[in-house]
Amino acid sequence: MFGVLRKKPVDKLVEVLGKKKVNISLVERKLYSYDATPIPLQRAMPSAVVFPESHEDVVRLVEVCYEEEVPIFPRGAGSGLTGGAVPTLEKGIVVSFERMNRFQVDVDNATAEVEPGVITAEFQEYVESLGLFYPPDPSSFKYSTIGGNIAENAGGPRCLKYGVTREYVLGLTAVIKEGKVIKTGNPVIKDVAGYDLTKLFVGSEGTLGLITSATLKLIPKPRARATALALFNRLEDVGRAVTKIFTSGIFPSALEFMDEDAIRAVEDFKPVGLPKVKALLLIEVDGSPSSVKEDISRVEELLRSMGVEVRTASSKEEEEKLWSARKSLGPALGNLKSGKINEDIVIPRIYLSEAIPKFREIAKKYDLLMVIFGHIGDGNLHVNLLYDKANREEEERAERAVDEVFELSLKYKGSITGEHGVGLTKKKFLKWQFGEAGYELLRGIKLLFDPKNLFNPGKVVEV
Amino acid sequence: MFGVLRKKPVDKLVEVLGKKKVNISLVERKLYSYDATPIPLQRAMPSAVVFPESHEDVVRLVEVCYEEEVPIFPRGAGSGLTGGAVPTLEKGIVVSFERMNRFQVDVDNATAEVEPGVITAEFQEYVESLGLFYPPDPSSFKYSTIGGNIAENAGGPRCLKYGVTREYVLGLTAVIKEGKVIKTGNPVIKDVAGYDLTKLFVGSEGTLGLITSATLKLIPKPRARATALALFNRLEDVGRAVTKIFTSGIFPSALEFMDEDAIRAVEDFKPVGLPKVKALLLIEVDGSPSSVKEDISRVEELLRSMGVEVRTASSKEEEEKLWSARKSLGPALGNLKSGKINEDIVIPRIYLSEAIPKFREIAKKYDLLMVIFGHIGDGNLHVNLLYDKANREEEERAERAVDEVFELSLKYKGSITGEHGVGLTKKKFLKWQFGEAGYELLRGIKLLFDPKNLFNPGKVVEV
Repeated sequence: MFGVLRKKPVDKLVEVLGKKKVNISLVERKLYSYDATPIPLQRAMPSAVVFPESHEDVVRLVEVCYEEEVPIFPRGAGSGLTGGAVPTLEKGIVVSFERMNRFQVDVDNATAEVEPGVITAEFQEYVESLGLFYPPDPSSFKYSTIGGNIAENAGGPRCLKYGVTREYVLGLTAVIKEGKVIKTGNPVIKDVAGYDLTKLFVGSEGTLGLITSATLKLIPKPRARATALALFNRLEDVGRAVTKIFTSGIFPSALEFMDEDAIRAVEDFKPVGLPKVKALLLIEVDGSPSSVKEDISRVEELLRSMGVEVRTASSKEEEEKLWSARKSLGPALGNLKSGKINEDIVIPRIYLSEAIPKFREIAKKYDLLMVIFGHIGDGNLHVNLLYDKANREEEERAERAVDEVFELSLKYKGSITGEHGVGLTKKKFLKWQFGEAGYELLRGIKLLFDPKNLFNPGKVVEV
Repeated sequence: MFGVLRKKPVDKLVEVLGKKKVNISLVERKLYSYDATPIPLQRAMPSAVVFPESHEDVVRLVEVCYEEEVPIFPRGAGSGLTGGAVPTLEKGIVVSFERMNRFQVDVDNATAEVEPGVITAEFQEYVESLGLFYPPDPSSFKYSTIGGNIAENAGGPRCLKYGVTREYVLGLTAVIKEGKVIKTGNPVIKDVAGYDLTKLFVGSEGTLGLITSATLKLIPKPRARATALALFNRLEDVGRAVTKIFTSGIFPSALEFMDEDAIRAVEDFKPVGLPKVKALLLIEVDGSPSSVKEDISRVEELLRSMGVEVRTASSKEEEEKLWSARKSLGPALGNLKSGKINEDIVIPRIYLSEAIPKFREIAKKYDLLMVIFGHIGDGNLHVNLLYDKANREEEERAERAVDEVFELSLKYKGSITGEHGVGLTKKKFLKWQFGEAGYELLRGIKLLFDPKNLFNPGKVVEV
């Protein structure tokens, strides 16, 4: 008897998909083994990078991988910050959705059918040209994909008023274990039939299966928008101001917060004329032209009655000037130090003035530079620890400080992540947040969809 | 050896909870074996009705029930329309949450901690007195409970703009198998840590465990509201009108639809002065006083340009008059026939003008009176089949017609239920909607939370 020569899994993939969709070059495999995560990760060169072009391609590739026990690492634009798209096993393949980038908008139904590889900004621009609106605005929206946004349940400043990505996904087509296909939801807003598999899939970070199409909800595009900039001498007043705005019937479309160090960083880097204050708040409102005017003047009135300095804009240029501090923040931080860990923890905004000094204590303890900004309306704070990339010892200190940042967030009834997801980097903290019974359920859900642990293995939850 | 006298499960419940929380009287057991479902159901007298007063009581009762294999039928106000709260096994107990009705609002955080037995309207009234808003408005809101609303993922007219109950539940404390406790979510809007167990639990109709507390999101209360009534001579124009409104940047807070038979039923019962038209639309907008004015006059302009008759209100009395047709509809239908099956199917609104005549054909085939109204913005149509309760033959025809109504909805990419849930009455249709792979997942999820199938067994999904 002769031994049977077994085909390698990658050859099988080439067989079912064709050569053009399976790249095994060293350069490509290397390129696709990274994402935007700023800290060192456990990573591996995948055995191939696969580029499906249709739903059927995805079914076929999952069938092969499930049979051959090949781990699948799905990838949108690789803009994630927690290692979600990083391959960690050499046996595995990266599945990049960049060629599945078609979409179709149904104006009359205010919905769209979207493939996972569609760039979020391109989709948004198109629907806005039709008078409709797709609100989710992660800061990566210019290059990140709808598929990645759904996998991570992406948010952004506007989500305070409009909700996160999950609220806009009405249905999904996904390929799960063995290449089985599930179709969840419908192009309708209300649907209470059975457990909501759609919302469960959103935010699952590629660990339950591969999305091949999403039905998205669109809403009317607000016709106008305006901003006020508020300058605070006392941290406690920030929370009070937000409460005043909310209980006056004003629902801001963004409430962006910067602490004193963030303001200083901007002024040192590229001065925009901000005084030395404890915090600033950018308050954006949107809606009809008349309501925007009315709301901004009410905001002004409310804040001035608290003794807070307020600046508003009467032209588009002035509007942009108000936002310039927030927009220069990224480059300003990059200028301060070569390395940055940006943790997107969440705490209820009532604890803000109490928690911020405690975050600072952590920075002090580890002798690090810390800058805090974020979306204050929803309590999503970006706690940035800055370090010198060339200094491994300082980097390690930053990594240790992060642990304490998470612990503190959970102590304040918060979450370890408001936007970036769990991926690889926050895995160990997830158990803290869910407790034993909760974590057990996560594990059970993972195994229902993926009993062989082949979809993005090692991410989010350990099985 | 003597046999050991085994305590009965109900005695054990009395032992751990005390007599006052466990009622075994015949009257009480009979009373709690019904809900508001209008059609005959398989039902059973429970062995007891249990009234927990705290989270700890719930843990204890689940521990006993899980050990003794006693089915648990949770109940809010019993206002459900699909048999969700009906006990179906004599061994089982009904758990009524009416004594767990405390809540606490955190104005500064715009969140609330709410026990399941809180009446929705009472909660809403209180938060509105603080300038905040909890939008979900099922038509039962005056007596239904937050716990029941969460279990059913309740919606209502406002959900077009504001989203359903699920969007307002930030976290839950729930008791699952063996009395284990899970705490999901946090009092924050953004949280992408792990799979979203909170949203999975919402809408699970009591089949995964018992909710003992919910963290709800509150938003700023809109300061003003106004309505326009539009009268359509052609069904096709209704959809076109909705598209025009949406793409003009106007987001109505309600878009209520009534078909010609619904209008006639109202006019025959208690005339409000509506002409004979094919359909009417009530368009409500809310927001700041100035935007409401601006939006209503734009709506008027848009519709008039389509040749549609529009009526608006300039006083509160006139406003109420506009709504009177919609509000008289319930009593008017009750006046027509003694029995009514109100199915809340959903179809994308683009298919409306095509589907409505087909629904009518079903009514014709079974020789039944059919009245259609609903929340057109989200495609949620209430298809009402009217019959004589004393006429069992006619009732059976109505039940058979319902099957075809569901089939038609699914054909139009819709759902079998937009608001009422699956419960007992829609169970068989759920498989149609989910397909085999999807249904398998529902079953798996159910067994993860409840391996002994004791939480509301026989509802939603068959294990």
